[in-house]
Amino acid sequence: MPEVDAIQESLTKETGNLLFHQIRQKESKDIFADYIILIKTVSLKNFTPADKAVHNKKLEKTCRTVLTRLQQAGLRAEIRRGSENFIFVFVICESQRLKREVEMSRIHDWFAGVRKRDIQDDEEESNEPLTDSERLRLIYEIITNPTQEGGAGINPGLGDFDLVESILPLHDDEYNEDWIKTWSTKWIIEKEDLFRLRNHFGEKIAYYFAFLQYYCVWLIAPSVVGIFTWLFLSEYSIFFGVFIVLWSVIFTEFWRRKEYEFAILWGVHNYSRVERRRPTFQEERFVSDPVTGEMKPYFSPWKRWLRRAVAAPIIIMFSLTLSVALLFYYLFEVLMSEYYDGPFREQLIYLPTVAYCALVPTLNMFYAKIARRLNEYENYETESYYEFNLTQKIFISNFLIGYLSIFFIGWIYIPFNDEIGQHFQSFFEIFGLTLKIKHVGPERLMNELKYFVLTAQIMSLFMEIGLPYLLRAGAVGVKKIQRNTTKDGARNEDESTFLKRVRKEAKLPVLFSVIWPLTPVAALINNWVELRSDAIKLCVHTRRPIPCRADSIGPWLENLNLLIWLAAITNPSLLYLYHPTSNAFSSASLMVVMALIFCAEHLLSLIHSLVKQMMLAIPSPADDYIKKQEYEAKKWLLEKKAGKSPVRSRSQSIDTLNLQGTEEYSSELEVSLLHAIHDYKSE
Amino acid sequence: MPEVDAIQESLTKETGNLLFHQIRQKESKDIFADYIILIKTVSLKNFTPADKAVHNKKLEKTCRTVLTRLQQAGLRAEIRRGSENFIFVFVICESQRLKREVEMSRIHDWFAGVRKRDIQDDEEESNEPLTDSERLRLIYEIITNPTQEGGAGINPGLGDFDLVESILPLHDDEYNEDWIKTWSTKWIIEKEDLFRLRNHFGEKIAYYFAFLQYYCVWLIAPSVVGIFTWLFLSEYSIFFGVFIVLWSVIFTEFWRRKEYEFAILWGVHNYSRVERRRPTFQEERFVSDPVTGEMKPYFSPWKRWLRRAVAAPIIIMFSLTLSVALLFYYLFEVLMSEYYDGPFREQLIYLPTVAYCALVPTLNMFYAKIARRLNEYENYETESYYEFNLTQKIFISNFLIGYLSIFFIGWIYIPFNDEIGQHFQSFFEIFGLTLKIKHVGPERLMNELKYFVLTAQIMSLFMEIGLPYLLRAGAVGVKKIQRNTTKDGARNEDESTFLKRVRKEAKLPVLFSVIWPLTPVAALINNWVELRSDAIKLCVHTRRPIPCRADSIGPWLENLNLLIWLAAITNPSLLYLYHPTSNAFSSASLMVVMALIFCAEHLLSLIHSLVKQMMLAIPSPADDYIKKQEYEAKKWLLEKKAGKSPVRSRSQSIDTLNLQGTEEYSSELEVSLLHAIHDYKSE
Repeated sequence: MPEVDAIQESLTKETGNLLFHQIRQKESKDIFADYIILIKTVSLKNFTPADKAVHNKKLEKTCRTVLTRLQQAGLRAEIRRGSENFIFVFVICESQRLKREVEMSRIHDWFAGVRKRDIQDDEEESNEPLTDSERLRLIYEIITNPTQEGGAGINPGLGDFDLVESILPLHDDEYNEDWIKTWSTKWIIEKEDLFRLRNHFGEKIAYYFAFLQYYCVWLIAPSVVGIFTWLFLSEYSIFFGVFIVLWSVIFTEFWRRKEYEFAILWGVHNYSRVERRRPTFQEERFVSDPVTGEMKPYFSPWKRWLRRAVAAPIIIMFSLTLSVALLFYYLFEVLMSEYYDGPFREQLIYLPTVAYCALVPTLNMFYAKIARRLNEYENYETESYYEFNLTQKIFISNFLIGYLSIFFIGWIYIPFNDEIGQHFQSFFEIFGLTLKIKHVGPERLMNELKYFVLTAQIMSLFMEIGLPYLLRAGAVGVKKIQRNTTKDGARNEDESTFLKRVRKEAKLPVLFSVIWPLTPVAALINNWVELRSDAIKLCVHTRRPIPCRADSIGPWLENLNLLIWLAAITNPSLLYLYHPTSNAFSSASLMVVMALIFCAEHLLSLIHSLVKQMMLAIPSPADDYIKKQEYEAKKWLLEKKAGKSPVRSRSQSIDTLNLQGTEEYSSELEVSLLHAIHDYKSE
Repeated sequence: MPEVDAIQESLTKETGNLLFHQIRQKESKDIFADYIILIKTVSLKNFTPADKAVHNKKLEKTCRTVLTRLQQAGLRAEIRRGSENFIFVFVICESQRLKREVEMSRIHDWFAGVRKRDIQDDEEESNEPLTDSERLRLIYEIITNPTQEGGAGINPGLGDFDLVESILPLHDDEYNEDWIKTWSTKWIIEKEDLFRLRNHFGEKIAYYFAFLQYYCVWLIAPSVVGIFTWLFLSEYSIFFGVFIVLWSVIFTEFWRRKEYEFAILWGVHNYSRVERRRPTFQEERFVSDPVTGEMKPYFSPWKRWLRRAVAAPIIIMFSLTLSVALLFYYLFEVLMSEYYDGPFREQLIYLPTVAYCALVPTLNMFYAKIARRLNEYENYETESYYEFNLTQKIFISNFLIGYLSIFFIGWIYIPFNDEIGQHFQSFFEIFGLTLKIKHVGPERLMNELKYFVLTAQIMSLFMEIGLPYLLRAGAVGVKKIQRNTTKDGARNEDESTFLKRVRKEAKLPVLFSVIWPLTPVAALINNWVELRSDAIKLCVHTRRPIPCRADSIGPWLENLNLLIWLAAITNPSLLYLYHPTSNAFSSASLMVVMALIFCAEHLLSLIHSLVKQMMLAIPSPADDYIKKQEYEAKKWLLEKKAGKSPVRSRSQSIDTLNLQGTEEYSSELEVSLLHAIHDYKSE
C-alpha cells in the first residue's frame, strides 16, 4: 500500500518531528499521549484505482482536518500509521493550554453552583491538584467541543469525521496493576480507594464501584439473618419476608444519602447543569436565554413529550410481546420437562432451551436497537438525560426477562398446576399422546430462584472473565510503541459494552429471598467477586473509558424502589400461598391475595415515607460542608465590603439614639453572621 | 382603684411625655404606635389588702421590666391606663433603629439563601422600599427576641411576663376600607392585589387569599363540565369522575408551582432557614455548630421521634374512637329518620342531631387540646415546624368529621340497607316495636353531599359574618384615643381563631362531585363569597394579625394530595355501585370493588408522576429570576476580581504557545460567563 504510506509520510512531515515523551515527563513515566484518535483505513485490495484515489483523498482530507483542528484548539498532535486498519493521531495537551482550560472549567462550575467552593485568590486555586480524570475529561472536551467554543470539534462518525473511529485514552498500566493488587488483597474497599478510583477513571466508574461496595457491605445483615432463617425457621418465613422488605427500604434510603455525600465529596453535585450538549442534539430553533439574553439552541420540551408519547405505545407493545413470548416459553418448558412422556423425550427436553437461546437474545437485541432509535429520536440535550432515558427503556426488557419466571411459577404454574396439565393432556390426546401430571410444590419456585441466583451468575462470571482471556490467548509480541495502542485498539469489547452491562445491574434478587433464604449469601459472594472481577475487566479487557462525571448511579435507585415495591406486594401473597401452615394453593382465595397486596403496598409506602422523614433528622456531613463553603464565601465578601463602606458609617454617625458607632457596628456584623448560621436550618 | 391609678401615673411620669404622633408622621396619617402591649390588670374588689399589695407590686414590676427592656432594645414606649382590664404600652420604633434592623435582617436572609439578590452597595439597598408587613414583623421580632440577641425578650405569658396578655399591631383603617372596597367591586383578584395584601398583612395571610383565589379560578372548569354533566349525562357519570380526578391532580401541581413562584416573588423562599426559635423551645443541651463552631441550643431529633412515637398511638386511638362514635351516630340517625316508626317519632327525630351537637364538638375540642399538648411536647424548634405538625394532627379529626359520612352512606348504608334494617328490627322486636324498612337509593348519597356543600357552608358563612355583627351590635361611642385599641382589645375572636379556621380549609368536596355534579358550582360560589367575607372578617372582626412569613400554604398541599388519592380510589367504586347501567349494589362483588380500587390507585400515581414530569418541562419565570440574580452576583464578583488580578496576568505572560494575552483572556472570561449560563440547565 504505497499510497497510504505516502500519505502517512507527508503527514508525518507536516506535523514535524515532535516526540511527545521528550516534551513532557510525568514523574518518570513516559506518556506517549493523552489521547489517540483512530482513523479507519479500508483495505484497498478490491478497489478500482478510481475508488482508491477517492478514498485516499478523503482519508487525507480527514487527517488534515483533524490535525488543523487540533492545532487550532491549542493541542499538539503527531500522526502515525498504527496498524493494518488504523492511522493513529497522538494528541497531547501542554500544561499552559490545560491550565487555561482548568481555570475556565472551574469558573464555569462555580457559576452553575456545581463548585461549592468560592473561586478564591489565584494562588490558592492553582495549588488545587488536577486529577488524572479531570485532565483527561478536559482534554476530551477540547477535542470534541465545537470550534466556536474553542474546541477542535472532532466527534467520531459525525459530519466530516465519519472516518474517525474513536478517541481513546491510554491505560495507565502502573495504576491498573496497583489497583488490582490493592483490591484483590483487601476485604473491604475503603473510601480512599474509591477516591483514587474516581481520580483516575472519573466519577461514573467510581459510582459503579461505590454502589457495588456499599451493597456488598449491606448484604451482610440479610445474609446472617438468612442463614439463621434457613437453619432454624420454617420455609417461607414471615419474619424473614418482613425483614427483607424493611432492610431494602432502609438500604435504598441510606444509599441515596451516601450517593449525595459522594457527589459533594467528589464535587459533582448538580454537574448536569454544566454538561455540554450532545453532538447529535438537533435544535428546533435558537431562542434568547432569559437570563443572559444570549442566543441558544432550543428544542421544545412539548415536542419531546409528543415524541415520547409516540415511543410509549411501541415500548408497551414490545413489552407485551416479550411477556407473551416468555410465558409461552415457560409453558413449553414445563410441558417438556415435567409433563411430556412421549417419544424422543431425551432429545426434546433440550428443545425449550434451544428455543429460548434463539428467541430471547434476538428479541432483546432487537428491542435494544429500537430503544436506542427512539431515545435518539427524543432528542435529549445532554448525555446524562439521554443515558437516563435509555436506561429506563432497557430496564423494562431486562426486568421482564429477569423476573417474569418467578411470577409465572409462583402465581400461575404451581397454583394451577393441575389445570394446566389437564389442558395440555386434552390437547395431546388429539395426537394420541399421553402426559403424566406430576404434582409440584413450592420447592419448584425455590429451584428457580436458586438457578437465577447461582447458575446464571456463575455463567455470567465465566462469560465476563474467562472467555475474553481465552479469546485473547494468541495476542503477544508487538512493537514497543504499538503495544499499548494495539492492545487498546484490538480489545474486542470496548468500554461502552462495560457500561452497557453496568446498566443492567439493577438486580436485587435478594428481595425475593423469602423463597430461598440463602439468596443474600449467594448475592454477597457474587458481589464480592464481581467487584474485583470488574476491576480486572476494566483494566485488562476493555479500553480505558473516557472519564465522565456523574452525581448518582442514575435511574437505578428509582428502579430499585420499583423492585422493592414489587417485592412488597408479591412477598405477602407468596407467603400466604406457600407458608407451611397455610399452604393455601389448593384453596387459595384471590380475595385474600388482593387484600394482602393492598395492605402490604400501603404499609410499605407508609414505612418508606417514615424512614425518609427520619433520615432527614440525621445531619449529613455533606450538608455541613456545603454550608461551610457558602458561609466562608459570603463572610469573605461581607468583610471585604464592610471594610470599605464609607456610606454605611456616615449614615451611622447621624445616629442620635444610643446606637453603636462604626466600630461596634462592624462587630455587630460579625454577630449577625454567626447568628445567621446559628439559625441556619437544613431545609 | 386608686392604687392602679397611682401606678399608672408614676409610669406615665417615668416614660416622660412623649407623644408618638408628634415624632413620626406617615404620609399625613397619625400613627399612634407600631404595637400595643396589653398588660392584664385584675379587678381588685374581692382582694384582701395584702393580696392587693402583692398584685400591684407584681404589676408594677412587670410594667417596669417591659419599659426598661423596650428601651434597652432601642424602642420607644409610652404607657397608658387603657381600659378597665388592661394597661396599654404603646411601642414605636424610630427610623434609625428600624433601619439597622432592616439591614441586619437582609444580611441575615442573604446568608441563609432566603434573599436571592446580592447585598449590593448600600445606597441601593436603602432605596429598597420597606413594606408595612416587614416593618411590623421586624419590630415584633425586636420586642420578642431574647435580650442577648438585641431584642426586648417580651413574650406574652412566658417567664416574667405572665401578666402580659398580648402584643398587637393596630389596624390601618384606611387600608382596610380601601381593601374591602377594591375586592368587593372586583370579580377577579389580581396579582397586584395579592402583592398589596402581602405588603400589608404579611405572606401568611397573603398565601391564604392567594390559594382561595387560585382555587376559585380553577373551579370554573369543573363547574362548566359539572353543569354540562348534570344537564346531559347520566347520574354517576364515568366521564365526569375521570375528569374530576385528572383536574384535581393538575390543579394541585399547578398550585405547587404557583406557590413556589409566590415564594420567589415575595422573597420568602426557604425563609424557615432564618426563622427564630420558638420561645417555648426547650433545648436538651448546647452543642457547637459544625459550620461556625458557635454554641447553639440542641434538641435531639431522635428524642423528638421518640416523642412522636408516643404521640402516634394516642392520636390513632382517638381517631378510632371518633370514627366509632361517628358511625354510631350515623346509624342512630338513620334509625331515627328512616326506620323508626314508633311512638314520639316527631320528637325523637331530633335526638340524633342533639346528640351530635353535644358529642362531636366536645370530642373535637378535647382532641384539639390533646393535639396541642402533644405538639408542644414534641418540642419543635421553629413556629413553622410546630404549625405544620399541629395542622397535620388537627387535620385527622377534621377529615373524619367531614368525610366519614360519605363513606358510611356510600359503602355501608346504601349497599347493606336491608341487612342493617333487619338487625335493627330484630333488636327492636324485643321491645315490641316495629320498624318499616324503606329502600334507599343513590339519591341519599347525593343529598348528603348537597347538605355537606350547601347547608353546612351557608351555616358557616352566617357564623362567620352574621353572628359577629350581631354580637358587636352595642359597641359604640368611645374616646378617640382609645377607639382603635379598645376595638382591638375587645374583639372576641382574635386572629389566632382566624388562622385556626384557615387550618381547617383543606376541603375539596369537589373531589366527590361525581355524586352530585353541581358541587363545583356550589364550591365556586362559596369560595368567591368567602374570599370577600374573609377579607371583611379580617378587617372588622379580628385583631390585626402580626405579619408572618410563609413560603407555602403549609401541609395543605400534601393533605389535598391525600384527598385526591382518596377520591381516586373511592370514585371508581361509587361509580361501579351506583352507575345506572350497572346498579350493582344488589349483587355487588367485593372482588370487583377491590380490583377497581387497585387499578385506580396505580393509574392515579402514574398520571400524577407524569403530570409532575411534564410540569418540569415548562420553564418557570421564578427559576429564571433566581438564576439571573445569582448570575448577576457572580458576574459582579468575577469582574471585580478580574479587574485586579496581577497574578493571573503574570502567569499568562509566561505563555509560549499561541495563547491570548491578558486582555483577550479577560474577554474570554466574559465568554465563559455567557457559556456557563448558556448551559445552565434547571435541575
